[in-house]
Amino acid sequence: MALTTRVEKILSWYASENPGTLTNLVRLLNHGALAGTGKMVILPVDQGFEHGPVRSFAPNPEAYDPDYHFQLAIDAGCNAYAAPLGSLEAGAARFAGQVPLILKLNNSDTLAKVEQPVSAVTGSVEDALRLGCVGVGYTIYPGSGARNRMYEDLREIALEAKRRGLVVIVWSYPRGAGLSKQGETAIDVCAYAATIAAQLGAHIIKVKPPTAHIEQEEARKMYEKYSIPIQTLADRTRHVVQATFGGKRVVIFSGGESKATDAVLEEVREMAAGGSFGSIMGRNAFQRPRAEALQLLADVIQIYGSAR
Amino acid sequence: MALTTRVEKILSWYASENPGTLTNLVRLLNHGALAGTGKMVILPVDQGFEHGPVRSFAPNPEAYDPDYHFQLAIDAGCNAYAAPLGSLEAGAARFAGQVPLILKLNNSDTLAKVEQPVSAVTGSVEDALRLGCVGVGYTIYPGSGARNRMYEDLREIALEAKRRGLVVIVWSYPRGAGLSKQGETAIDVCAYAATIAAQLGAHIIKVKPPTAHIEQEEARKMYEKYSIPIQTLADRTRHVVQATFGGKRVVIFSGGESKATDAVLEEVREMAAGGSFGSIMGRNAFQRPRAEALQLLADVIQIYGSAR
Amino acid sequence: MALTTRVEKILSWYASENPGTLTNLVRLLNHGALAGTGKMVILPVDQGFEHGPVRSFAPNPEAYDPDYHFQLAIDAGCNAYAAPLGSLEAGAARFAGQVPLILKLNNSDTLAKVEQPVSAVTGSVEDALRLGCVGVGYTIYPGSGARNRMYEDLREIALEAKRRGLVVIVWSYPRGAGLSKQGETAIDVCAYAATIAAQLGAHIIKVKPPTAHIEQEEARKMYEKYSIPIQTLADRTRHVVQATFGGKRVVIFSGGESKATDAVLEEVREMAAGGSFGSIMGRNAFQRPRAEALQLLADVIQIYGSAR
Amino acid sequence: MALTTRVEKILSWYASENPGTLTNLVRLLNHGALAGTGKMVILPVDQGFEHGPVRSFAPNPEAYDPDYHFQLAIDAGCNAYAAPLGSLEAGAARFAGQVPLILKLNNSDTLAKVEQPVSAVTGSVEDALRLGCVGVGYTIYPGSGARNRMYEDLREIALEAKRRGLVVIVWSYPRGAGLSKQGETAIDVCAYAATIAAQLGAHIIKVKPPTAHIEQEEARKMYEKYSIPIQTLADRTRHVVQATFGGKRVVIFSGGESKATDAVLEEVREMAAGGSFGSIMGRNAFQRPRAEALQLLADVIQIYGSAR
Amino acid sequence: MALTTRVEKILSWYASENPGTLTNLVRLLNHGALAGTGKMVILPVDQGFEHGPVRSFAPNPEAYDPDYHFQLAIDAGCNAYAAPLGSLEAGAARFAGQVPLILKLNNSDTLAKVEQPVSAVTGSVEDALRLGCVGVGYTIYPGSGARNRMYEDLREIALEAKRRGLVVIVWSYPRGAGLSKQGETAIDVCAYAATIAAQLGAHIIKVKPPTAHIEQEEARKMYEKYSIPIQTLADRTRHVVQATFGGKRVVIFSGGESKATDAVLEEVREMAAGGSFGSIMGRNAFQRPRAEALQLLADVIQIYGSAR
Repeated sequence: MALTTRVEKILSWYASENPGTLTNLVRLLNHGALAGTGKMVILPVDQGFEHGPVRSFAPNPEAYDPDYHFQLAIDAGCNAYAAPLGSLEAGAARFAGQVPLILKLNNSDTLAKVEQPVSAVTGSVEDALRLGCVGVGYTIYPGSGARNRMYEDLREIALEAKRRGLVVIVWSYPRGAGLSKQGETAIDVCAYAATIAAQLGAHIIKVKPPTAHIEQEEARKMYEKYSIPIQTLADRTRHVVQATFGGKRVVIFSGGESKATDAVLEEVREMAAGGSFGSIMGRNAFQRPRAEALQLLADVIQIYGSAR
Repeated sequence: MALTTRVEKILSWYASENPGTLTNLVRLLNHGALAGTGKMVILPVDQGFEHGPVRSFAPNPEAYDPDYHFQLAIDAGCNAYAAPLGSLEAGAARFAGQVPLILKLNNSDTLAKVEQPVSAVTGSVEDALRLGCVGVGYTIYPGSGARNRMYEDLREIALEAKRRGLVVIVWSYPRGAGLSKQGETAIDVCAYAATIAAQLGAHIIKVKPPTAHIEQEEARKMYEKYSIPIQTLADRTRHVVQATFGGKRVVIFSGGESKATDAVLEEVREMAAGGSFGSIMGRNAFQRPRAEALQLLADVIQIYGSAR
Repeated sequence: MALTTRVEKILSWYASENPGTLTNLVRLLNHGALAGTGKMVILPVDQGFEHGPVRSFAPNPEAYDPDYHFQLAIDAGCNAYAAPLGSLEAGAARFAGQVPLILKLNNSDTLAKVEQPVSAVTGSVEDALRLGCVGVGYTIYPGSGARNRMYEDLREIALEAKRRGLVVIVWSYPRGAGLSKQGETAIDVCAYAATIAAQLGAHIIKVKPPTAHIEQEEARKMYEKYSIPIQTLADRTRHVVQATFGGKRVVIFSGGESKATDAVLEEVREMAAGGSFGSIMGRNAFQRPRAEALQLLADVIQIYGSAR
Repeated sequence: MALTTRVEKILSWYASENPGTLTNLVRLLNHGALAGTGKMVILPVDQGFEHGPVRSFAPNPEAYDPDYHFQLAIDAGCNAYAAPLGSLEAGAARFAGQVPLILKLNNSDTLAKVEQPVSAVTGSVEDALRLGCVGVGYTIYPGSGARNRMYEDLREIALEAKRRGLVVIVWSYPRGAGLSKQGETAIDVCAYAATIAAQLGAHIIKVKPPTAHIEQEEARKMYEKYSIPIQTLADRTRHVVQATFGGKRVVIFSGGESKATDAVLEEVREMAAGGSFGSIMGRNAFQRPRAEALQLLADVIQIYGSAR
Repeated sequence: MALTTRVEKILSWYASENPGTLTNLVRLLNHGALAGTGKMVILPVDQGFEHGPVRSFAPNPEAYDPDYHFQLAIDAGCNAYAAPLGSLEAGAARFAGQVPLILKLNNSDTLAKVEQPVSAVTGSVEDALRLGCVGVGYTIYPGSGARNRMYEDLREIALEAKRRGLVVIVWSYPRGAGLSKQGETAIDVCAYAATIAAQLGAHIIKVKPPTAHIEQEEARKMYEKYSIPIQTLADRTRHVVQATFGGKRVVIFSGGESKATDAVLEEVREMAAGGSFGSIMGRNAFQRPRAEALQLLADVIQIYGSAR
């Protein structure tokens, strides 16, 4: 498939990477219903590990089966499916070559009580290669007292991944003692978290939709002094995209907790208007019955497909 | 020996693994009295390390001798015998080829007082190969503040084991500051622990029989909202099996502390009815006199053999 | 792209490989004008190294430029483009993701006089990953006194390539002191060479179109005793395909020296009728003017596309 | 470019380093508008990571784009541009060879609450080589309880950097429980911090402009007993330069927070008079509109160019 | 120094390389009297090793001193100075940063009698980094029965050099049992040798000026059939440049044995007219008295500077 002007433009931002990484970026950008648009919708499923199986899959018990998610990502025309080691091992042979895969390389369960949140490294670049993945995913928790260990593990993973031609996707999820609960999705914190991921060498950055809350006083002064618009979600999305290397890194937004279809679509519409590169939609997809999930993903794809 | 339809079905869930691992899976599934049924009864003996010798072997002093357990597993028709390095080294030559062996790769003694429980890695994939094992066993403690170190060690062990064609069996035993004592066997925690093991790449997962207790509030809401049946042990077993990749991973249940024969068999009957893939039975076997143990194991095997 | 029944069938022959290798096999089989048919046409350009630039590119001087071949393979709808290190480095960034690449890992020039032909290893699996290739190519010379060194280098390359999820394509070109000139393409030798490549672990095997000549006396007796049909090229193709694991390895045929269009197409028609999985066509493509080459490749693709 | 007497003099202080490091020192000293003077002005941009994007770039939104800083450093005739991994990856290919680059190897965000400040190691010497850098930058926090970990990480980085021919630049920024807020820029502390960096093997040392405050009682006694002049910034600069191996290490001073142009230039004039080797000026440069920033840097360069 | 359009064009051919290699390419292209023209004149001095000291330096005894060559390359405005390990170690510290250095990584003496010429690997990428080199040089002897060992050593060196950001320069000097003495500089062999170097991943290729002799019969047919002009040295240069990736690799020509000034300049004029990227001139430079050598190099530079 020839490259569209938009995909060529995006690739130009990653000119320091070797052709292997560029190739896998193209595989992501040129797959599925949004192929060639420079937009992407990714299906991520790590909630079994992160929140436990019953909270994740009871609403739609078919989703206990890892194969379900491969098929959902394929049928919905997603750009990629992202999951931890076990989930990918379960279906990677059966679904080989049908959808780009992202191996989520660290995960955190919610059984232990820890003061400073930190994820365990649960997979490796070696695993990603043997499973046929286009990239690796990694979560950081800016705000956690243990953040530095996560940044440092990521440094080694990213260096190896880039040498081997993989794409590095970073989930940047602020949390920890340094932040209020509200602050985890504050606009200043979200923009900051996206910047940190970009500085750590991420090719694609996933953040949560930011709220209009401002967490840090020094930041508030700037928003006010420069009258930076953060009223609407579109405004805030635009701000986060700008804050991430002036728009020269692919930033996508997660959907968060399950909610009503209208609410999901309205959120996506706002973010698309603000220049989001796409959505990574887990629970809102797989916790719905399959037909409903396919319809929702089709609607989301339609919104991004007609953006700009 | 040709594969039964059931064993073929089970192998299909592990299609991402190389033939060496599949071969050892078949050795496990096609050995002993339950060969070909897709069910398994494993004799595990790591209590000498875990609880000390006198608590483990005083009830049946013949069991101080590692050879005793090899012979018991062989004579009872178990699918495999699992033990730490020293135990296997003691008998592996003499009993070579007579029963599939699983090298337990980490262990924890009860002499030290630690805040966050964690096992020491006491053997290696190299050891497992030189001793002729079909697989390696590894314990994780979800709920411990030290769990991440255990997950990360397991990541490396599992990658190497799979490359070398071994089966990875994970003992998933919740404990630690994050959980109440009751919570260690709570149904929600047990299901969660099984999922974590599966996500970490385990081929076979061993958990404890879950109780009807629910530990986490967010989970309780889901059990209630979706009316998930957890009244009987059969119900709970069914739930744990489903929670483990929709039944696409082999989940077996341990017997726990020594108890009366009737209680053991009743428990097994319930779990078999709930779709358990088998039992891993240590103290209830080796702490009984040999003849009694053989009878008990025969009864357990009989239950699984006639299940489904 | 969903898998066709035929591609699923082909994948089933490689079930011992890990999902990464299967994924790259699908990338090959599902790309270009023959996507999904189980047939493939590959553009290979290593003649600059093998025969020197003037013999290779003087007929069509645009072809001196490595970019020319990337574009030709893309525009013609080939399944892949195969070339040595330098050629791929020259264009891999510019054409990233537009056509599956195969890094040819060994090459032999024709400037030195050697008794026993042997190729130099000129690239590595590391190179293939950083350049974004789906597989590695390697030439063996059965018949050469130096063949064992080549087989042994291939062994190491193939093991690493498979661990990292790449496809292994072997050019099996009999030559050397053990064979007459005529024997290099003899039907018995060609079938033998294909088997050797398969036994060395090749996923895809490239041979030359075999002649009706029989080189080895012991082989001749069998062809006669069992009346194996080798009269037509279709017969011989069928025989080579059968000789390569009973048809369970992808065998493709090279086009050899430049010749008239009719001759090329007639040869391809015969081979397609005999069950060839496709053609790897270098000089007959790139030594023609571009428009003519595109037409020829379109015709070749059309023949394979309508076969069976 | 032949070496000036001054540059030769400076190189003589580093005679223990291998020629690779000397070469990169010359590349720094002989680049830009101050080439050959032995003075340097460096553009550092790690504020996105350290203070967050909005506090850093809202005053001049063009500066969100990493390319902006490369171009600014080039156009202003700076000796080098220093930034974290992501920023350099974003532009290193496009601007290859146009300005010496320094990869900042550790960084600290301000989202977490930590008792003892410490930066995460976010890049490696490997990264610096693949990105074409002349050196690596590293921050230490003398005064922090975690300082030793930072010193020890630096030890390993510096050893590797020197073996590979890179220059080691250390940002020595006192902070932590051991110091009052005022003490962070106290003259005794600043001089001490410069010495520590020199002792850790830094080739170039960056400190903040020191105040006349004295933090440590034992130090105060000496300043008084020996009537060390610390009244003016020129005095204090002279003292810090002397304290850093008697002037035999390159010490440069940062500009700190944005301030009025006159204030910046007055500070630079004082430091130049005191023998500073140059300035590393981030926020005062990139937070101004581009034309203004170019003018300011030209003025700063002019001051250093005419010093001594 | 900003890039000229020509240098930008040249860099675009190497887009698969990382920014470190691009940076060192720019350092080569932007240094000396030909900076920015895309042309280069390199001073190579490995004759001490290759031919012995007296044959090399007796005509101009000052040249026994390695420092002499550094100074000559600097004063003449050469783009680079290339020499074996010892020579560079002798002067690299003293002349650090004054001229780009190329470490010649293999060398062959003429004391041993060997049937198949082959050079020893006498330096490493590690050495090149510690000495501050922009690249490594390596000689291959196409035509030698030992060529494959040289190609394979080069493969490993080139992979490491590229990972570490160095430029790879290959001296491609046909010789060995496969070639007549005349054939070593035959036009067909020279073009072939340049192609081999390019395919092995060389960034810059050095060949000898080709004669009108044609060595291989198959090649002769092509020259005649396509009427490829090879009458003049300009014609032949044009042909070699074209043969090297259609002009998309930097090809430079050596001067060969000492000869009269007029002959040297005439040769250079012809090659410049034919599109040569420059000259690598050893004996013709350093075997002349210094003043004469400087004049000659100035004249050569002038020719390239005004070409095209």
